[in-house]
Amino acid sequence: MSEFTSRIKNKSLLSKVMRAEDTLQFFKNGMNIGFSGFAGNEPKVIPRFLADYVEENNLQGKLRFGVFTGASHGGNMDNVFASLDMVTVRYPYQSGASVRKSINRGRIRMIDKHLSHYAQDLTYHSAPPERGGKVDIAIVEVVGINEDGSLVLGGAVGVTPELVRFVDKIIIEVNTVMPCHEGMHDIITPQKLPNRQPLLITNPGDRIGVTYVECDTEKIVAVVESQIPEPGRNVDLEVIDDIPEIISEYILDFFYYEVKNGRLPKNLLPIQSGTGKIGNCVVRELGKGPFKNLSMWTEVIQDSALDLIDSGKLDVVSGAGFGLSADARKRFYENLSLYATKSVLRPAQISNNPELIRRLGVIAMNTPVECDIYGHVNSSLVLGSRMLNGIGGSGDFTRNSHLSIMHVPSVRPSKADKIGISSIVPKVSHVDHTEHDVDVIVTEYGLADLRGLCPNDRAKIIIDKCAHPDYKPILRDYYDRATKECINNESAHEPHILRECYKMYLNLVENGSMRKGC
Amino acid sequence: MSEFTSRIKNKSLLSKVMRAEDTLQFFKNGMNIGFSGFAGNEPKVIPRFLADYVEENNLQGKLRFGVFTGASHGGNMDNVFASLDMVTVRYPYQSGASVRKSINRGRIRMIDKHLSHYAQDLTYHSAPPERGGKVDIAIVEVVGINEDGSLVLGGAVGVTPELVRFVDKIIIEVNTVMPCHEGMHDIITPQKLPNRQPLLITNPGDRIGVTYVECDTEKIVAVVESQIPEPGRNVDLEVIDDIPEIISEYILDFFYYEVKNGRLPKNLLPIQSGTGKIGNCVVRELGKGPFKNLSMWTEVIQDSALDLIDSGKLDVVSGAGFGLSADARKRFYENLSLYATKSVLRPAQISNNPELIRRLGVIAMNTPVECDIYGHVNSSLVLGSRMLNGIGGSGDFTRNSHLSIMHVPSVRPSKADKIGISSIVPKVSHVDHTEHDVDVIVTEYGLADLRGLCPNDRAKIIIDKCAHPDYKPILRDYYDRATKECINNESAHEPHILRECYKMYLNLVENGSMRKGC
Repeated sequence: MSEFTSRIKNKSLLSKVMRAEDTLQFFKNGMNIGFSGFAGNEPKVIPRFLADYVEENNLQGKLRFGVFTGASHGGNMDNVFASLDMVTVRYPYQSGASVRKSINRGRIRMIDKHLSHYAQDLTYHSAPPERGGKVDIAIVEVVGINEDGSLVLGGAVGVTPELVRFVDKIIIEVNTVMPCHEGMHDIITPQKLPNRQPLLITNPGDRIGVTYVECDTEKIVAVVESQIPEPGRNVDLEVIDDIPEIISEYILDFFYYEVKNGRLPKNLLPIQSGTGKIGNCVVRELGKGPFKNLSMWTEVIQDSALDLIDSGKLDVVSGAGFGLSADARKRFYENLSLYATKSVLRPAQISNNPELIRRLGVIAMNTPVECDIYGHVNSSLVLGSRMLNGIGGSGDFTRNSHLSIMHVPSVRPSKADKIGISSIVPKVSHVDHTEHDVDVIVTEYGLADLRGLCPNDRAKIIIDKCAHPDYKPILRDYYDRATKECINNESAHEPHILRECYKMYLNLVENGSMRKGC
Repeated sequence: MSEFTSRIKNKSLLSKVMRAEDTLQFFKNGMNIGFSGFAGNEPKVIPRFLADYVEENNLQGKLRFGVFTGASHGGNMDNVFASLDMVTVRYPYQSGASVRKSINRGRIRMIDKHLSHYAQDLTYHSAPPERGGKVDIAIVEVVGINEDGSLVLGGAVGVTPELVRFVDKIIIEVNTVMPCHEGMHDIITPQKLPNRQPLLITNPGDRIGVTYVECDTEKIVAVVESQIPEPGRNVDLEVIDDIPEIISEYILDFFYYEVKNGRLPKNLLPIQSGTGKIGNCVVRELGKGPFKNLSMWTEVIQDSALDLIDSGKLDVVSGAGFGLSADARKRFYENLSLYATKSVLRPAQISNNPELIRRLGVIAMNTPVECDIYGHVNSSLVLGSRMLNGIGGSGDFTRNSHLSIMHVPSVRPSKADKIGISSIVPKVSHVDHTEHDVDVIVTEYGLADLRGLCPNDRAKIIIDKCAHPDYKPILRDYYDRATKECINNESAHEPHILRECYKMYLNLVENGSMRKGC
């Protein structure tokens, strides 16, 4: 018996085994396709086949799909599809140069949505089906199929339970080169309204579901073998010197102070850490700090979580999927049985659920595009218009966490000026997280604790602690003049001068640097 | 035995009975005072005494307090305190001309916070005490004290459980002219982290707590009699013709359509309705519609909830407090036993809890200041700076609800132009609810269903369905030019022209109308 056949324990499904090219019959121009995976562990064979088919037959712009994923794609599929003009709609999050470019050219309509709400949307076909909200076919990668037809997933759950339950046609890719992750998953699909029950999790390691995804085998239209290994996630190459380490030190000091003052338990509270270099660094540095018996309640589980497990400081990590570099994935596979005892993979609707984030008192840490002097945060749109990746899970976590921290380098380079872009601006060009949601902002210059402060007090402390020295005078000057004008106008709760609050952006566009022209 | 004495069943507390003037010893300049109540049912005797004392002794600006309430004040205390310059900090929400004026003059520092988070903050003294986050003394109005010292509240809960549990000194006002509301309350104080347990409510009428607030009588420093009746809440006098009725009709039609398509149950889902004329109207109109066995999971219970009970269509309403007009309160008291069977009063930390709003699948309906063409919503700051009332509970509900609806008149009058202020603008001057959180916008011109739409599609439908006809060409012109410019710049995900996105506001300031100068 081949590895492939042995992984399919429900033998009735063997009659549905076919080659990738035979699945073409199931795809029609304009369909919405749902993909399993979450920042990794997406199906690999059918998407490649579809892309090759489009390319070989010059069907660019003629065979196009709505692409519904769990989150970003761990591999390169998003870019390949976008380059071949195969995408009409992209829901709910993406990363990758080509797909981003097509979105910003107006060719791909991206629906940018909180990941927990998106999972719920899939349950309800809302957007309503008549407006394109229904997924026509799901492609799901598994590492095995049980006797009863239920599915054993790889290193991600994402929205796969919702896809399998609410989509009528399913294609299964059985990946035979991936080790078995059985037992790492904790899967429930929340009931539809009005019958939702409490999610009885009070600790990140608690299990309330089963280890497989129940599946009606009647809906499976094809089973395909995949021998394509999971690609490594691109390591973030942005050069920001020792900034992540400095920021981590501020955050660890802050945690220490909060523990000392009885506002955090000695083992902190469950940590959420967003993708990127700074987040990875903070989590890694926690392994060197004084805190033990840590836990993580997060979304994408990154390389640093493995480091933290290796350090002996992390009791358990819960997330919707592993997003690992090639090196980390190798390590992960080699020690799968160890990591499996410390990890729980959950549906995104659970990992990002407001109920659990609030109850557990998660400490949310994310890297935004920029913050403003009053604490509003832009996580998605550069200059208010240009899509970067999307809000992803940062909204779910920031708005429901016990403590929400935004960590960001104080400046980034523009083409013309190595400190041409300040991460602290008078008024952010786009708001993803409001002043009501953000507790702490930290850059390599310092940490601003905003809790219990009015906007005027926040402005002073953010400029003072977080802004780059070259931008401090510019920001202070704006704040001082805005205050003067708004006190005269009796509107000084949160002083702004609307006719010039975006001046720094205009400087960047016109003069190549936010500081040139002020 | 007097009414007063008979309402104090714990006889040891009789030794702490004193006159209002004798409580002066407990107040010092700079203290933070916590007030019970939630849009009504605040203490009345001590605040009046303190205000009189300041006025008679010319202590304006010399005896000042941080004022921590449940939400807005049902009575006039906020304005009286502000007029006498008695307020340093105002946390978390307010309404009233004088207090607003002082905030906007920079004299009162207002901390504007989601009400559920604020309740949690009180538990943690976060803001940290060294930064003014600790409440020094609480004044709590009750309708009775039980034998064990526990407190029976009137028509509101708000943050009283947190105040009673976490503040060291408590003054009790026993209101002897208010009927007994015993049995209407369902009170728990959520455990501190990391020991929070699930809130086992799956229906708005479920009860998981007790009917009283547990109280350590050692902390009670004074018991004072109050014979001041609960004042009626000001009825919103804004003249907006038949706009609320038209908007209600759109919303009821939308509900009907959703039920027909299987996306809402026949009895809808629990309704949250924000304060104001439109919200009141929608709830009232539901009593005339085809839906039965309705329920409400809301925050301030307004007059219209009584109408809906009277119509026989409402099974149960749950909220943090009654905010009733004088007429409605009279009706409420006269039929207290009927209304009591249909009402549950809860702590704001429960009424506004993300866990419950998400699980129950609440339909959230609120009236904002303004919306923009991409679906961002401003609920708090006029022209980006001037505080109106605060975010209150609208953030808790909008961001965690199953369906979030913003209802607003398409225009409001400015001094110079009866349609001088458009509620639909290119880019809101302040964001309280992001594009990711808002499902439906409705004005008297139509309803825009934004679910599953990308920003460009949202802009078209919002302008088309919701904008006032006089503003449609202005908004379309902006959107068309922004799109053209952003497609050229490859930033067309959400087209904006930052140098002129606030032009309509500048028109208003300079020319007295948003449409003059475009």
